[in-house]
Amino acid sequence: MMKLTPVHKALEIIVNHTQDFGVEEVHFLNSRNRILAEPITADRDFPPFDRVSMDGIAFHTDALKNGNIRFEIEGVQAAGSPQLSLKNPGNCLEVMTGAVLPKNTNCVLQYEKITIENGFATLEETALKEWQNIHKKGFDKKAGTVLVKEGSKVSAAEIGVLATVGKEFVKVRKQPKVVVVSTGDELVDVNETPLNYQIRKSNVFTLASQLEYSGIKAEIVHLADDKESLKNNITEYLQRFDVLMFSGAVSKGKFDFIPEVLDTLEVKKHFHKVSQRPGKPFWFGTKGSKTVFAFPGNPVSTFVCYLKYFRVWYQKSMGLEPRNAKAILSEDVSFKPNLTYFLQVAIENKKGEIHAKPIQGNGSGDLANLVQVDAFMELPLGRTDFFKGEQFPILTFRNY
Amino acid sequence: MMKLTPVHKALEIIVNHTQDFGVEEVHFLNSRNRILAEPITADRDFPPFDRVSMDGIAFHTDALKNGNIRFEIEGVQAAGSPQLSLKNPGNCLEVMTGAVLPKNTNCVLQYEKITIENGFATLEETALKEWQNIHKKGFDKKAGTVLVKEGSKVSAAEIGVLATVGKEFVKVRKQPKVVVVSTGDELVDVNETPLNYQIRKSNVFTLASQLEYSGIKAEIVHLADDKESLKNNITEYLQRFDVLMFSGAVSKGKFDFIPEVLDTLEVKKHFHKVSQRPGKPFWFGTKGSKTVFAFPGNPVSTFVCYLKYFRVWYQKSMGLEPRNAKAILSEDVSFKPNLTYFLQVAIENKKGEIHAKPIQGNGSGDLANLVQVDAFMELPLGRTDFFKGEQFPILTFRNY
Repeated sequence: MMKLTPVHKALEIIVNHTQDFGVEEVHFLNSRNRILAEPITADRDFPPFDRVSMDGIAFHTDALKNGNIRFEIEGVQAAGSPQLSLKNPGNCLEVMTGAVLPKNTNCVLQYEKITIENGFATLEETALKEWQNIHKKGFDKKAGTVLVKEGSKVSAAEIGVLATVGKEFVKVRKQPKVVVVSTGDELVDVNETPLNYQIRKSNVFTLASQLEYSGIKAEIVHLADDKESLKNNITEYLQRFDVLMFSGAVSKGKFDFIPEVLDTLEVKKHFHKVSQRPGKPFWFGTKGSKTVFAFPGNPVSTFVCYLKYFRVWYQKSMGLEPRNAKAILSEDVSFKPNLTYFLQVAIENKKGEIHAKPIQGNGSGDLANLVQVDAFMELPLGRTDFFKGEQFPILTFRNY
Repeated sequence: MMKLTPVHKALEIIVNHTQDFGVEEVHFLNSRNRILAEPITADRDFPPFDRVSMDGIAFHTDALKNGNIRFEIEGVQAAGSPQLSLKNPGNCLEVMTGAVLPKNTNCVLQYEKITIENGFATLEETALKEWQNIHKKGFDKKAGTVLVKEGSKVSAAEIGVLATVGKEFVKVRKQPKVVVVSTGDELVDVNETPLNYQIRKSNVFTLASQLEYSGIKAEIVHLADDKESLKNNITEYLQRFDVLMFSGAVSKGKFDFIPEVLDTLEVKKHFHKVSQRPGKPFWFGTKGSKTVFAFPGNPVSTFVCYLKYFRVWYQKSMGLEPRNAKAILSEDVSFKPNLTYFLQVAIENKKGEIHAKPIQGNGSGDLANLVQVDAFMELPLGRTDFFKGEQFPILTFRNY
């Protein structure tokens, strides 16, 4: 019997075979969820000028020295207008949030704290400091400062920064080209009515959908359980794609040709069969810069292998550090086989603690059970009993 | 001075003005992150036949009764082939995972536990049960069972179920049509070089990017700080869009025309100014089925108002229950003003606990600070000191 590779070892091998897919330039509005391949620096000071941060009046604090609290209004400094100058040091200018602070002023008092009548503003508060309600030039960031580090994942916050510094096009790490291949002569298309002994394809679509979370648009294909056809098509895929992702035909069946065909095509096998449930028949190999993930055909097996192995490989290839989330088991669980067990759980945040409630399924074929599930909890091998209150790693797959 | 609306009251008003945007049909591969507007039922039993779940041989347990452990192999039942019949009750058939169980058999033993020689299979294990390694028809789900409830959010798991039951097109809740409007004459486009007193637009892009997380492709427009132009354009937007989202021009400035123009256009104001920081000048109103979110112009204010108010309004409009996540404050924090404070925090999962570390920013204008931030923690008003170890609600905005 073939020796099983432990889960930690399988993952170690996989992260030792990450790839660099290079760099491309995209419009900043298309960079969400992408990984920056350049640092984003401040093109000017932020704020770029002494910026009024309250609607009100601007004046000079020297004018307060003789007890004066009434100022004639010389005019209005609007946001988006060139800087005005206060002409008479005893007067003031109305100023709007976002405007440049007028020359010869050093203090802003908001409308809430003044009264305006007949062109004069009277202060209702006099304990005033220089630079009050003024966001000083360069206070947030100096020109040239790195605002977003290379290797950051772009969220709405980074999109805003890209806009601010005028980065209309931005360098991001290129995505791998992925083909998702189903095999299995029992499979028919989604729009077909299966005969008694047939079922519809589903794994290729769950995989393609999971890839979309990482912004990867995969090509989906189906191959018959036929050695020659597999050989010819896989030869072509090894040229056209960076990643080949199979689902099925990696176990002991008479038509499980994938390992043999990959061997013929000189794809180096790094391991076949992992000591885990579900997902034991998982096969992993590489040929030059090409990476082959051959997942088992059962829906839940494929699902969990994607999360545990491909997702980490992808994140590491992109230079991202995968988050190691843990959760607290909310019920005792027993699992006898000496395998790492990926337990299906529903997740709940209770007062800042992440609780994982086991959701009973009918094994690796029961895809419908996953709709109640938020994550897989990884229970280590070498133990049979896992207790309420213990913490274990989780693999989540939903966005909120 | 205008009375401030408390945060909880503002949210209550907003969720009392959710909308139903109807239903549309989309291809199942485009339904990710959408909300189902119909229940998904099993079109047949799952599994649809007595399904072989191990590669090996199938036979009838009656044949074991006289101590027989050696079976002649009659043939092979492949996955995707019509059901065979075992002709001689003392023989067996090779069977593949996913195949229909052959007629006249009731037990499967895997290759690992048999030896095959000269067309005969010899069992290495004899403590066998009926239906061993057979996934019985309808065991997971009976035909007609609801597999995915109406109102569910579609993830990769649901995509797989849609494929399995042949739901090529699926009814989902329609998205609102959203226009994101910037105002402010100090703003220039991303590809322009701002003059000394100008800055580039950013809020409309962060908002559009946040909307993308919910699968909403917003239209982005800019309007000058001019009453007539605002009036004409907003009149048109109230006809073409379900949601108008403004950023800026809602405070006390001389050119903050938005509240006045909305009033002229008979958009009913539900509140203006909320007792929170940042985001105090937030304005909210409706006109018939149209909803207007007028956020303050400061980048962090807009950002947090989107998460706290629009996102919840959207989720409730879609029939989703927003998740109330909490986290544990990892440092003491003081905040004096009697306002709800949205503290910027970085999030870390430590042994199943979500810890929130405050990230010092320079106030509501400091967008660049958000790149270090994972969430806003909502610290209630009426208190000044918040202690390490206390739990408070968080608003997260990144996907992993």
